[in-house]
Amino acid sequence: MQRQIPEVVVSRLPMYIRGLTELYQGGIALVNSGDLGARLGIAPAQIRKDLSYFGKFGRRGRGYNVALLLGELSQILGLDRQWLMAVVGVGRLGRAIMDYKGFAPRGFKIVAAFDRDRKVIGRKVSDVEIQDMSELEATVKEKNVNIAIVAVPSSEAQEVIDLLVQSGVRSILNYAPICGKVPPGVRLEGIDPVLALQSMTYYLARSCDDLS
Amino acid sequence: MQRQIPEVVVSRLPMYIRGLTELYQGGIALVNSGDLGARLGIAPAQIRKDLSYFGKFGRRGRGYNVALLLGELSQILGLDRQWLMAVVGVGRLGRAIMDYKGFAPRGFKIVAAFDRDRKVIGRKVSDVEIQDMSELEATVKEKNVNIAIVAVPSSEAQEVIDLLVQSGVRSILNYAPICGKVPPGVRLEGIDPVLALQSMTYYLARSCDDLS
Repeated sequence: MQRQIPEVVVSRLPMYIRGLTELYQGGIALVNSGDLGARLGIAPAQIRKDLSYFGKFGRRGRGYNVALLLGELSQILGLDRQWLMAVVGVGRLGRAIMDYKGFAPRGFKIVAAFDRDRKVIGRKVSDVEIQDMSELEATVKEKNVNIAIVAVPSSEAQEVIDLLVQSGVRSILNYAPICGKVPPGVRLEGIDPVLALQSMTYYLARSCDDLS
Repeated sequence: MQRQIPEVVVSRLPMYIRGLTELYQGGIALVNSGDLGARLGIAPAQIRKDLSYFGKFGRRGRGYNVALLLGELSQILGLDRQWLMAVVGVGRLGRAIMDYKGFAPRGFKIVAAFDRDRKVIGRKVSDVEIQDMSELEATVKEKNVNIAIVAVPSSEAQEVIDLLVQSGVRSILNYAPICGKVPPGVRLEGIDPVLALQSMTYYLARSCDDLS
């Protein structure tokens, strides 16, 4: 039995996975918290504390075994299996998501897609047939969809989230620029490109000041 | 003159802005680090430490003044002005980005777009005309573009990033699933939806275990 891990620690694990994967692919066998921290922009002390939740991965002065840590973290995050996803809303954004080549190699497979628009229902995008929204609940249950991606306009997003929750989906990735609501036990994460832009502007604003 | 702020602190400020904006819109005037932390999934002690870099915003036992803190953090991040952006790659993803309604209200304006495909060059998406990639350098300089968004396939992403750097762009938001390289002084952030999925699977994997 594992201890309860704080959410903020869990949210950092994918970054560790990404950094460790790069190291592993580059043939690096051992890494210390200082080098890993420099690569990820996380304080070494934070890394040591985060990883301490999951047992002893490193030896003082020797660093972490990259392959071992990568395998262990992947298992902890449940990345040693395939997750089935549905996309709701197949406009430009939804189609771009269905087209995205980064999901499948990392264990996330899109198996269903839904829209309200009769002009797109019945068409295929990346080998997945777009179904009518009215078939969502039955299809999600039948295909054992674990995760749903919401790519509808903001005005429809909460309604779609409610429908997904009602259909038994417990993990939702929301691309609409709203802060949706879900009941306890359901996880809702938002993809908000503005958050990334807003931290870049800090540095842009500083360098403009330098010039004046 | 401000002290040098650690990158990881800067990267958390947009989340504070988002949380504070919600509170502000909800008519909340004061918030303590415990309530703000619960809302954002960040430890209260971390919040107090992060905000201490920027001066005294709160009084012990009273909490932070939401409007004051929001205004101050917005200014620190350079969000009190408009930033001009270019999109490179106008396929499905690029068009979805140009269509995205969340940028403009938060001060990010797309003013140029580029592609290699003659079939799309000259067309308009959301009032911006798509130009040939060969015009990128001149247009970016002429229009004072601050930030570029890369939405080309992985195989072309590094080449586009190099061209942007050469054209004087110092902030790049990369949607291609690669870890690009930039010289010192240029900031490159990646949008990777898989990172958000990978922390949700932690909870899905746990709840599956519960059932067995």
